[in-house]
Amino acid sequence: MPRIAVDALGGDNAPHAVIEGALDAAGDGIEVTLFGPASLETQGLLLVEAPDRIDMAEKPAEAVRAKPDSSLVAAVRAVAAGDADAVVSAGNTGAMLAAGLLHLRRLPGVLRPAIAVPIPARDGPSVLLDAGANADARPEHLVQFAHMGVVFSEELLDIRSPEVRLLSIGEEDEKGNQLTLEAHRLLRDEGDRLNFVGNAETRELLRGAADVVVTDGFTGNIALKLLEGTIKDLLDAFRAEITATVLGKLGGLLIRPAARRLRTRLDPDTYGGAYLLGLRGLAVIAHGNSSRRAIANAIRLAARGVDHRVVDRLAERLPERVRV
Amino acid sequence: MPRIAVDALGGDNAPHAVIEGALDAAGDGIEVTLFGPASLETQGLLLVEAPDRIDMAEKPAEAVRAKPDSSLVAAVRAVAAGDADAVVSAGNTGAMLAAGLLHLRRLPGVLRPAIAVPIPARDGPSVLLDAGANADARPEHLVQFAHMGVVFSEELLDIRSPEVRLLSIGEEDEKGNQLTLEAHRLLRDEGDRLNFVGNAETRELLRGAADVVVTDGFTGNIALKLLEGTIKDLLDAFRAEITATVLGKLGGLLIRPAARRLRTRLDPDTYGGAYLLGLRGLAVIAHGNSSRRAIANAIRLAARGVDHRVVDRLAERLPERVRV
Repeated sequence: MPRIAVDALGGDNAPHAVIEGALDAAGDGIEVTLFGPASLETQGLLLVEAPDRIDMAEKPAEAVRAKPDSSLVAAVRAVAAGDADAVVSAGNTGAMLAAGLLHLRRLPGVLRPAIAVPIPARDGPSVLLDAGANADARPEHLVQFAHMGVVFSEELLDIRSPEVRLLSIGEEDEKGNQLTLEAHRLLRDEGDRLNFVGNAETRELLRGAADVVVTDGFTGNIALKLLEGTIKDLLDAFRAEITATVLGKLGGLLIRPAARRLRTRLDPDTYGGAYLLGLRGLAVIAHGNSSRRAIANAIRLAARGVDHRVVDRLAERLPERVRV
Repeated sequence: MPRIAVDALGGDNAPHAVIEGALDAAGDGIEVTLFGPASLETQGLLLVEAPDRIDMAEKPAEAVRAKPDSSLVAAVRAVAAGDADAVVSAGNTGAMLAAGLLHLRRLPGVLRPAIAVPIPARDGPSVLLDAGANADARPEHLVQFAHMGVVFSEELLDIRSPEVRLLSIGEEDEKGNQLTLEAHRLLRDEGDRLNFVGNAETRELLRGAADVVVTDGFTGNIALKLLEGTIKDLLDAFRAEITATVLGKLGGLLIRPAARRLRTRLDPDTYGGAYLLGLRGLAVIAHGNSSRRAIANAIRLAARGVDHRVVDRLAERLPERVRV
């Protein structure tokens, strides 16, 4: 039974949505332990006392060092100590990264951890990384991200020999900036070790550009937030236009099942979180505005990663694959 | 009467859509001259013979030097020679940039031209630049882009004292990569010369992040293509879901006016093109897959730029504003 440490104070809707979501996940047979102040009403879930809290606006590295007994850092430390198999937080992403680097540490050979986010593409889920762990990256980092993405894709999305593409501004090999041009060459040099099939353009992202889409953390974060924001704004705008007239409202009722199917596919809550890969322990970062459902799904995602031994797979395969 | 030189062989739908679009624009009192082979049936429009053609896949700089009599380069040269006030092409963007640099040359003080694209935001149009002229940019380039965007916003979108934001991965000043962190500082240093109000996240882009959104050409191109691709994919997916059931189809008929209003707002053809700013002449780059309507609107956009003396305004204001 996977043991998941959950930061009860992480996210805009904490602690309520976190506790409710944790209860839902616990109902699936996942052993959930909450980390937070003793005053928390945990509704029967295990609680490890962690009185401090790291806010969204705090500087990550400083906050992590200054607050070892914060709910976020204590939950990460539980994984480092072997008391939990994975950690989930909807709190400060930078603090999660800093706590992971400090307490879990990087896997041997890993230069930089990366945030791997499932993308609900039309042709089936793909994974985008790095979605924001490293604002600046070097070409060799992107090669490692590619290998991490392959492990994610194989173990969690059940894809054999996943296709890898590099996010750039044209499908042609010679399109890109200095970083992507050099990364493209290094990815080609991986030969048989990687099923690298070339560049992907962002316009393909929601259609299913590739099983694994590799980019630096700045570009990945730009792309991910744009994708999420555009989906939300467009669905909202559509609703506003439809409900502006009586006939439109009637039509809206008739298309409601169709709209719901689309929303379900595109809802970020469906996955609930992203993996922070490359550490000696599994960490799942949930959206800051996570709902109860998102938290439950983030915990389930963490449990799946434990079941599939994602960290062991990365440890086994990265050192042999990565030449930097 | 603005005189617009149009590359008759540019774009996936050339020459047919280009000639039809040019006829539509000519009907508005714009003097359109086509550039292309003598065999072209121009339906009464003026034709300047330019027998060669630059393909989408050709290397820009080489093609521009090797083919001075291509439809694209000849149209650009017409502006340089004073025979036309602006040039429009739906052809190879890189070739347009290379031809602009070679034949029109940069305005005094301008380090790099930038592609300025109107974004159909909910709260009114904004302008994003650079959308792809420079894959790699330095912080001081972004400051110039900001000033160019202000001129675009004032002259063409009728906005007084436009707000400028820098595209980054967080609204906080300290969020970003090395490029945006340094550009942020330089933009702040502009003080009263620029209404810089901080960073924008991409999730705000379609809502109306700012009047002017500044970024490097790689990130801008990534963002623009993702925005266009996501809008298209989402509208297509919605239609597919709706037409999957009989009730849905009926509902689809009732919401058709609402869907059409939304499509009209979001359709890239509404603007038809982007300005290439920073040259001693006005150049409009239309989408490669431009329809007749997109070409007509791109020509109208070029004519508006001529009427508003955008190049003169840039020439007057950039040297005094830009300290590099």
